[in-house]
Amino acid sequence: MLRNLSVGELTPKEEIYKRINSLKKKMAEKGIPLSLIIQNVDLFYFAGTVQKGALFIPIDRDPILFVERNADRVKYESPLDVIPIKREKEIRDILSEKGIKGETLGMELDVVPVLVCERWKDILKIRHVVDISNEIKDLRLIKSPFEIEQIKKSGEVTAHVLKMAKHHIKKNMTELEIDAILGAEGRKAGHQGFLRMRGLNQEMMNVYVTHETTCTIPSAGDVPIAGVGITHAIAQGASINRIKRGIPVILDYGGGYNGYITDETRCYVIGKLDDFFKKPYEVAKIIVEETTDFAKEGVNGIEVFERAIKHVKKAGLEEYFMGHGKGKVSFIGHGLGLEINELPVITPRHNIVLKEGMVFAFEPKFIFPGKGATGIEVDFIVRKDRLERVTDFPIDIVYID
Amino acid sequence: MLRNLSVGELTPKEEIYKRINSLKKKMAEKGIPLSLIIQNVDLFYFAGTVQKGALFIPIDRDPILFVERNADRVKYESPLDVIPIKREKEIRDILSEKGIKGETLGMELDVVPVLVCERWKDILKIRHVVDISNEIKDLRLIKSPFEIEQIKKSGEVTAHVLKMAKHHIKKNMTELEIDAILGAEGRKAGHQGFLRMRGLNQEMMNVYVTHETTCTIPSAGDVPIAGVGITHAIAQGASINRIKRGIPVILDYGGGYNGYITDETRCYVIGKLDDFFKKPYEVAKIIVEETTDFAKEGVNGIEVFERAIKHVKKAGLEEYFMGHGKGKVSFIGHGLGLEINELPVITPRHNIVLKEGMVFAFEPKFIFPGKGATGIEVDFIVRKDRLERVTDFPIDIVYID
Repeated sequence: MLRNLSVGELTPKEEIYKRINSLKKKMAEKGIPLSLIIQNVDLFYFAGTVQKGALFIPIDRDPILFVERNADRVKYESPLDVIPIKREKEIRDILSEKGIKGETLGMELDVVPVLVCERWKDILKIRHVVDISNEIKDLRLIKSPFEIEQIKKSGEVTAHVLKMAKHHIKKNMTELEIDAILGAEGRKAGHQGFLRMRGLNQEMMNVYVTHETTCTIPSAGDVPIAGVGITHAIAQGASINRIKRGIPVILDYGGGYNGYITDETRCYVIGKLDDFFKKPYEVAKIIVEETTDFAKEGVNGIEVFERAIKHVKKAGLEEYFMGHGKGKVSFIGHGLGLEINELPVITPRHNIVLKEGMVFAFEPKFIFPGKGATGIEVDFIVRKDRLERVTDFPIDIVYID
Repeated sequence: MLRNLSVGELTPKEEIYKRINSLKKKMAEKGIPLSLIIQNVDLFYFAGTVQKGALFIPIDRDPILFVERNADRVKYESPLDVIPIKREKEIRDILSEKGIKGETLGMELDVVPVLVCERWKDILKIRHVVDISNEIKDLRLIKSPFEIEQIKKSGEVTAHVLKMAKHHIKKNMTELEIDAILGAEGRKAGHQGFLRMRGLNQEMMNVYVTHETTCTIPSAGDVPIAGVGITHAIAQGASINRIKRGIPVILDYGGGYNGYITDETRCYVIGKLDDFFKKPYEVAKIIVEETTDFAKEGVNGIEVFERAIKHVKKAGLEEYFMGHGKGKVSFIGHGLGLEINELPVITPRHNIVLKEGMVFAFEPKFIFPGKGATGIEVDFIVRKDRLERVTDFPIDIVYID
């Protein structure tokens, strides 16, 4: 039944088992006999479902997925052994019947709330819990060919919205009106609905339309441009600011397909671009082009950042690069996958050698207090011999009559 | 500058201080000398901002809001004393200079991840942390007149979308197409962007368009109808299922204004309603009408549930009420506010006497495996002498030619 209703492909069985075996290897290195996965994104990665479940991965046996509800749906979505239960309290006995135990339990302590962790310690009578989130993030850093396929389909949604924007952005419209239309364009083109960002308070929208002043006001998120929003309760995204001629409209759009996120930004200008923004836009373009040319497997992320900053300094624009004042962020790129804040981070503080299968958004942007912003964001797949663009949507400024 | 860009009103200063003083009273009762609020929704409730900050509430002094970024924005949004810092590590010294200390720290342990809690214990050199989330939820249960105003504005967005739906739902359209259009209608009407649900893995959309089969497949969430979604990675919301004549289209829409959520459901039918759904819809209508008539301050939530279930049993529809089989949920209503899963919960398991200022969604729904669903959801404000509807949008089935 689900087969005819849902668009996204199921995660292949071999893929799921490969991921679980890789995690087991990391658990062995760290001396963790048993892990419990409960966060929905990690559950999707290791079990192929986001239904409420508790996935136990013992180092020396097959994984078991316990579910309280929806066992039928889980059995369709996941290739793993599913055990339907009535209450979580049954789990301890079932595990011990199967000879699965451990004095130390690995959990996703970067996202699991304290009370939830305490509840599981109590259910399992395990006193020692250690964090396995870094091991999981490390695994998720390298995308498989199946994952790259999903990312490319997500890129199609993104490219569609970037393309349609030209027909919808008009003088005097509010950011909010453009947001509404482009949100619908993306959804109709198959956007999964929302995007995920890992961690407490990490919230995001699919569409960010910002313009002039609203590009320049820092937000709660660790991002260079997030907009002002229409309420202080969600202080990000489109506002009621109206679009003027000559000043870039910054459209930052996050595609989502079968869980996988893409994230690109373009500038749209009605009429002629104000001279002020010409140089910084050109520098952003040069940075994207140079990075596309030289980066590939084996290159360090720090070098990618440093080459970029060299152009920025040469142009005398350092003060405005990736934010200004306290709104400055320290990175020029961030990993993409099931969450938008994955590894690698392209920053001088993250020593990471690029490797085939890494995927990251790369976003040289310039923010000028009170004036506006310009820049580009594209998504790259790291290949042995090059960087591959996720979408082929041109990086040029899109002019609107 | 923000004044002209953002629509939502700032939370009044007196309101903020009243909330903080109420929390202090609860802390005193529980013997907690100092609390630290970091979750963004609670921060918005107690400080009027969602910018990244750490709000310390000592029982015997004024609260202090520490911020690393965006001090200017925070100072505009929040009436509290704001102390800009460079690093969280500075906080301990500043607190001790001000004579603020405590051996026990209250935190929102239902949402704060283990590693975040550990980091704060380390920064503050406090070993004993206790949960204050229940105290916070209790405070947030009763809405102030200011909050009710925001909820009513949120209801206007909801009513607008419910009204516009009639013009957009057509035979053979997919749920996804309708979702895209109605999402845009809501956003243009001032929807804040997204809605919040408290807790790990609690995710939701603004729009749920479900129809026939897709109403009947249970989801990860503790909700009667959430749809199938277009991917197993986000297994909720609209699917590519196409709309047929005679079978109810269930539109469950969540408005959001200045942080506050409303949540209503109506049935839309193209042509004549299939006889099968007539009786259950009538029972849902009777339940809503009777509840509107008799419930008010002083009535117990259990009684509200029991009166409803009496009608359900009389009609012989118990098996299908609020889901079927393992997809059944145990409540008929849930509290609304800054999050969609607030108190009160209207269920036989939650003994709560209704009080002026409580706000809840009330949703008698019937789900018939393989066939579809019908029902109604309205939002109520509890008054001394009655229940007040948040929107005045009629509860009848909306017929489309």
